Amino acid sequence: MPQTISVVENILNANDRLAEENRARLDAAGVFSINLIASPGAGKTSLIEQTLPRLKGRLRVAAVDGDIATSLDSDRAAAAGADASVQINTGGECHLDAVMLRGALDRLDLTQFDLLIVENVGNLICPANFKLGTHKTVLVASVPEGDDKPYKYPATYRGVDTLVINKIDLLPYVPFRMDYFQRGVQALNPGVVTFPLSCITGEGFDGWIQWLIENTRKE
Amino acid sequence: MPQTISVVENILNANDRLAEENRARLDAAGVFSINLIASPGAGKTSLIEQTLPRLKGRLRVAAVDGDIATSLDSDRAAAAGADASVQINTGGECHLDAVMLRGALDRLDLTQFDLLIVENVGNLICPANFKLGTHKTVLVASVPEGDDKPYKYPATYRGVDTLVINKIDLLPYVPFRMDYFQRGVQALNPGVVTFPLSCITGEGFDGWIQWLIENTRKE
Repeated sequence: MPQTISVVENILNANDRLAEENRARLDAAGVFSINLIASPGAGKTSLIEQTLPRLKGRLRVAAVDGDIATSLDSDRAAAAGADASVQINTGGECHLDAVMLRGALDRLDLTQFDLLIVENVGNLICPANFKLGTHKTVLVASVPEGDDKPYKYPATYRGVDTLVINKIDLLPYVPFRMDYFQRGVQALNPGVVTFPLSCITGEGFDGWIQWLIENTRKE
Repeated sequence: MPQTISVVENILNANDRLAEENRARLDAAGVFSINLIASPGAGKTSLIEQTLPRLKGRLRVAAVDGDIATSLDSDRAAAAGADASVQINTGGECHLDAVMLRGALDRLDLTQFDLLIVENVGNLICPANFKLGTHKTVLVASVPEGDDKPYKYPATYRGVDTLVINKIDLLPYVPFRMDYFQRGVQALNPGVVTFPLSCITGEGFDGWIQWLIENTRKE
């Protein structure tokens, strides 16, 4: 057993070192970067699709899409107007890691972009354990998942910088108590920046777009 | 690297052996058992809540609920009328394994039950790699997750015995093409038994309940 644990620790240490290298490359190129994590179907790809047209002419955006199979997501990002998109197929792995992101960065001329959006594999647990080197981790929650998710996935909710609450257009149709959800979030991650929005109706997008632009200009 | 791979293989082999022991214990007691896997928020716990009252007086049911934190799920199963419920907190682990289920079985007098419902951790990827020893794996999909999920999580969809499509009451409000979803399912898992239903309206429950009763009586 101690041997197994030391192998796992070594992998995590190696990952953290590579994440720092990725960060240094992004910083050197002046690229602000976000890591989108979420349950399957919370709407990461839809969020990217709705975000890209709103940034057109204001920020040059590259999208890196991680998935265990298919290039459906990077196809959607490209169709939505990403200035470049790269698909990472993890081959069954349940999360992106810093090595995978390094491979994607190798395929991009970072000097051509202001913002890099990384879409992690749909999984609310494992991606939280692997740093990529991005500047901010953004959790995309969604209303139909239920209002108990902060309580059930505390490590993930505690570790993120920003929270998008997607699918607020479904609030009339599902039993979701926003105050109960928000109490759970605030207990774990006080003051976390939160954007309730809908990728279907467009409601709530102004604050999210402004946050992306302001953070990108700071970088 | 070869050393790392061999450690992982040894863990999986050990898990499979323990899964067989779990199965033998369940068979000896005449208990039919299912392993519910799903994304976070697809409705595993709600499905259990709506299933238990419909089995009352017909089957004696034990529920084992796996989660990375809290006992919210087993509390809900107990409140819904489970004859016994056991919570497994995985302590951050992203899936149940056969050791954890063995620990739960140790806490149950299996001769007192007909059906064991195991609720896995909310995760569409990792639980598919760890056998528990249960008789059938049931995937709970949900309409708001989107119709592309079979295409994006093929290993999970391919490996299950039964598919529940939950939240069909939301079909009027989300862009979900049932035919596209079903084509993806059938390509990966031809003839898989499928139950579209809603835990809110109760629509579609008759077939699901009948399937549980028939399979339990066969055991």
